[in-house]
Amino acid sequence: VAIAWNTVAIVGVGLIGGSIGLALRERGAARRVVGIGRRLASLDEALARRAVSEITTDLEAGVSAAELTVICAPVEQIPGLSCRVAAACPRASVITDAGSTKAWIVEQVASQLPPGQATFVGSHPLAGSEKQGVAHARADLFEGRTVVVTPTVATPPEACRRIEQFWSALGGRVVRLSPSQHDQAVAAISHLPHLVASALAASTPEAYLPLAATGWLDTTRIAAGDVELWRQILGQNRASVLQALEQFEKVLNSFSLALQQQDDRALTELLSRGKQRRDALAD
Amino acid sequence: VAIAWNTVAIVGVGLIGGSIGLALRERGAARRVVGIGRRLASLDEALARRAVSEITTDLEAGVSAAELTVICAPVEQIPGLSCRVAAACPRASVITDAGSTKAWIVEQVASQLPPGQATFVGSHPLAGSEKQGVAHARADLFEGRTVVVTPTVATPPEACRRIEQFWSALGGRVVRLSPSQHDQAVAAISHLPHLVASALAASTPEAYLPLAATGWLDTTRIAAGDVELWRQILGQNRASVLQALEQFEKVLNSFSLALQQQDDRALTELLSRGKQRRDALAD
Repeated sequence: VAIAWNTVAIVGVGLIGGSIGLALRERGAARRVVGIGRRLASLDEALARRAVSEITTDLEAGVSAAELTVICAPVEQIPGLSCRVAAACPRASVITDAGSTKAWIVEQVASQLPPGQATFVGSHPLAGSEKQGVAHARADLFEGRTVVVTPTVATPPEACRRIEQFWSALGGRVVRLSPSQHDQAVAAISHLPHLVASALAASTPEAYLPLAATGWLDTTRIAAGDVELWRQILGQNRASVLQALEQFEKVLNSFSLALQQQDDRALTELLSRGKQRRDALAD
Repeated sequence: VAIAWNTVAIVGVGLIGGSIGLALRERGAARRVVGIGRRLASLDEALARRAVSEITTDLEAGVSAAELTVICAPVEQIPGLSCRVAAACPRASVITDAGSTKAWIVEQVASQLPPGQATFVGSHPLAGSEKQGVAHARADLFEGRTVVVTPTVATPPEACRRIEQFWSALGGRVVRLSPSQHDQAVAAISHLPHLVASALAASTPEAYLPLAATGWLDTTRIAAGDVELWRQILGQNRASVLQALEQFEKVLNSFSLALQQQDDRALTELLSRGKQRRDALAD
């Protein structure tokens, strides 16, 4: 990859932001990578890990020369941060985010961002982990991973193209969806699994934990994710999550009925549907 | 480990049976390991992988000199196979199994096994995988893993001790439970997670699968397990599984309510409970 950007700013240098920095620097895709955050200790660690080339706690100063700013923050903070970035960065520059919801964020930014400033295009790299912090950042986190980019009718095509090129340069497989299409899809493929993993872990009697084997550990792994981050995600995408939950509960009821009625055929059919869907994806 | 057994017979040389054979041979814990099965191709593969030292499709001949026979078969077949083994093996020998349910199996064997024959003691090594077959067998499959041994009041202590020593020799961490205690515990820690993973996979719209990331993949992994094996397990343990499912559905309903009522505090509380339970176990 040739150098594509002179200055990229990353707001929030944790797992995602740190991995973006590492990937940009390893691929030589940016001359300068500015890490912006509130806690100096995290910024120092990001610098020590060479995830960024410079750091600052001053958001406005940090983005002042950025052609691209990526906001890696809890979803509720993204619109506010985007507006601050837009007011401080060059007009021709683009802003994107890495938030797990899109409809609310894109709407908020559209209604708050004054015209004639930098352009915001929503993104969601599907490459999280239950682990947090720059200590777990990896240059290859986005390699082969899907990144959803969510332009609206108001998004200038050129800005969308630049954001898509950015994620492609990091190894991502870019998929373009509308913000609401995105939210419906991730409700089923990411937010519901989180809710289910959490409910399964919470409902397991503590006394039985010593018997937990790989099955329980795999199925509940993401329940270890950050509580406040996920509270915000589930809350923002509540309509779609509730819809996905309803579909899940229907299948769960069918399982319950098949067990109650000792209906082996129905049980076989249900297990086969689950296996078929799971087998459709390699691991 | 010194040689503890002259002859161990393994009925069913797949992932579990094959791993028992590999572990016995690698640790030099048995002079002869006889692999018994119906399909010669599987037996040949077990022999080629050195999981067993000899093979036969003749169950009665295979166990005729076995001091210990381990039955690694779908749960519904275990009582019948145990009785055939008991009728053909030396009277002083012990028989165990690796089935995922225990109450039904132990009851069936107790009612069917004539007195004065070999002793059956139920076992359940909590070391499965969604993968099948001797090709995935590993000598270290039981290392550090919990193995539940389920004697009854009728079990001679010496037979129980020998079975516990057997699993310890393979690296297992032996836990003694009654058959019904075992079934209640694994309903919550193993059978319900399987049902939930399967229901989650089955309820995911196919169109969204391309967006699946590690969260969905982890949470649904065990749904790829063998359908017929799991149909038998869930069916045999239906009372305890239904009870565990009810507990799970209660938590799920609390999540649903918290989302519907936009109750951030309740949502935080639920996610915290899940995280706390999950964080209690390292990975």
